[in-house]
Amino acid sequence: MSVARPPVGPQVFTPADAEFEQRVRASFARQRLMRSLGAELTTVSPGEVVIELPFREDLTQQHGYLHAAIVTAIVDSACGFAAYSLMPQGAAVLTAEYKVNFLAPAAGRRFLAYGRVTKPGRTLTVTAGDVIAETDAGPRPIATMLATMMTVSGRDISG
Amino acid sequence: MSVARPPVGPQVFTPADAEFEQRVRASFARQRLMRSLGAELTTVSPGEVVIELPFREDLTQQHGYLHAAIVTAIVDSACGFAAYSLMPQGAAVLTAEYKVNFLAPAAGRRFLAYGRVTKPGRTLTVTAGDVIAETDAGPRPIATMLATMMTVSGRDISG
Amino acid sequence: MSVARPPVGPQVFTPADAEFEQRVRASFARQRLMRSLGAELTTVSPGEVVIELPFREDLTQQHGYLHAAIVTAIVDSACGFAAYSLMPQGAAVLTAEYKVNFLAPAAGRRFLAYGRVTKPGRTLTVTAGDVIAETDAGPRPIATMLATMMTVSGRDISG
Amino acid sequence: MSVARPPVGPQVFTPADAEFEQRVRASFARQRLMRSLGAELTTVSPGEVVIELPFREDLTQQHGYLHAAIVTAIVDSACGFAAYSLMPQGAAVLTAEYKVNFLAPAAGRRFLAYGRVTKPGRTLTVTAGDVIAETDAGPRPIATMLATMMTVSGRDISG
Repeated sequence: MSVARPPVGPQVFTPADAEFEQRVRASFARQRLMRSLGAELTTVSPGEVVIELPFREDLTQQHGYLHAAIVTAIVDSACGFAAYSLMPQGAAVLTAEYKVNFLAPAAGRRFLAYGRVTKPGRTLTVTAGDVIAETDAGPRPIATMLATMMTVSGRDISG
Repeated sequence: MSVARPPVGPQVFTPADAEFEQRVRASFARQRLMRSLGAELTTVSPGEVVIELPFREDLTQQHGYLHAAIVTAIVDSACGFAAYSLMPQGAAVLTAEYKVNFLAPAAGRRFLAYGRVTKPGRTLTVTAGDVIAETDAGPRPIATMLATMMTVSGRDISG
Repeated sequence: MSVARPPVGPQVFTPADAEFEQRVRASFARQRLMRSLGAELTTVSPGEVVIELPFREDLTQQHGYLHAAIVTAIVDSACGFAAYSLMPQGAAVLTAEYKVNFLAPAAGRRFLAYGRVTKPGRTLTVTAGDVIAETDAGPRPIATMLATMMTVSGRDISG
Repeated sequence: MSVARPPVGPQVFTPADAEFEQRVRASFARQRLMRSLGAELTTVSPGEVVIELPFREDLTQQHGYLHAAIVTAIVDSACGFAAYSLMPQGAAVLTAEYKVNFLAPAAGRRFLAYGRVTKPGRTLTVTAGDVIAETDAGPRPIATMLATMMTVSGRDISG
């Protein structure tokens, strides 16, 4: 039994835009990198997104594991779209900063990146993410992220 | 309903040292700063620790809220002792690095810092923490931490 | 000779407010915690601030070194005031998030925290900081910070 | 004139292994991802490495800029190899964690990632990195990293 979890339950968010899922999926489709990697956007809920990536050998580092930056790519996108799902129509999302801890080598046949909103805000949205590898021995956490996403208007993103 | 949480339940850790609670409490008692701040170590479970701090005006920043560094102090200690609770006898713990996101101004009459182990390791232990303020309007998350703790032997800590 | 430094020289910033130093010093004076710790604001330049703290035994952790959170307190303040020095009159600064790496135990008779602006912005200012310990063997870097500061108006900081 | 820089000059490191450059270049050549991206390892000095990447449209995010994760990929590799350059023969390097702040959209025709060692250590090496975009208006900093690299032996990296 876990006695040290904060006394605040999982949060339920009400999206500002009822068409949030459509908007998230359309934005994901415009991310050339996600397509180049072969990543898929599976779940889209208010404040929560899952992105999945099958293992690919051309994305590895020198020891044959998925490169840390690719692990980061999918969980950054999951966190960014989780934040974006709560933003109003016309807004755009940019990653202001993130931190990732790597928990185990990225070995596995498939990688699931879970992004969720910790604290939405008008300007900044704090998000958290986890990457789980599907391995022969079952699911294995391989990375955890803490990230700040920024709401910008279309005009602002060039600058 | 949350659909995007990773498919790995809350972890249950078996401490390497059955006397872990005693060891954690003794180490906490040697932290001069925690005493100076008036912080109390309440819960000590395997891999999970709670530290509590009543509001104090001499620990505030320029807007009258608890200073970010004090918020950090209690959650760093909670994470460090959470890691320490799983370490063998004779080990010592050092904070290698941490990152904190501040979610709301630290207003409240009491602050609870929750630290827990995300991934224990022989050398590095990854931990996560949260700080909740007790306010008139109920509990409010004010900060979230992601930290790397290092296991060192008594000899190593001077270096 | 260092060949791998980015081809961008040290930045020279022009403060938006000619009275920036006065404004920074007045804000520092309102930080109860800095006074409680015995910290002094020494240098205030556009985008750069130095804060100094003599060693004090009541601010130590369990091994007798200055507690990581106190090291963080002075460098967070140095970075925050460095950002603040470039903000317009009427603005306030809040720490959105920071990350600190601890490089060596905080042993020494005096600690100098250097904060500087990496990238100023209307809403977010990215800053970097370093803490140097004065030891019998000379100056020794003990911590390095990367932090995001947020410009808020007086009204926003309660929220 | 910058008055707030820490009183510690640029560090000069002596590599433990005289063949460090060869070892770094051989390891880079084994990074499938770097090849897939089209990244080149240009400078290799003791504790300092530069990696360069020409812009490519298939690596962009939804607004047409280089994806944050690709920016991260090259600076993570630059920092990792900077750490690796100081490690003894037979050692391997793993990224324990990193944090990146994004300073400007990754627009440009070429991106240069500078990685350097802040503090070498037997187990952990702290590194810092910067990414500069070559744009029509000159060099522009677009990201800054603070990362912890871990020395592991060949046996350890599977675990």
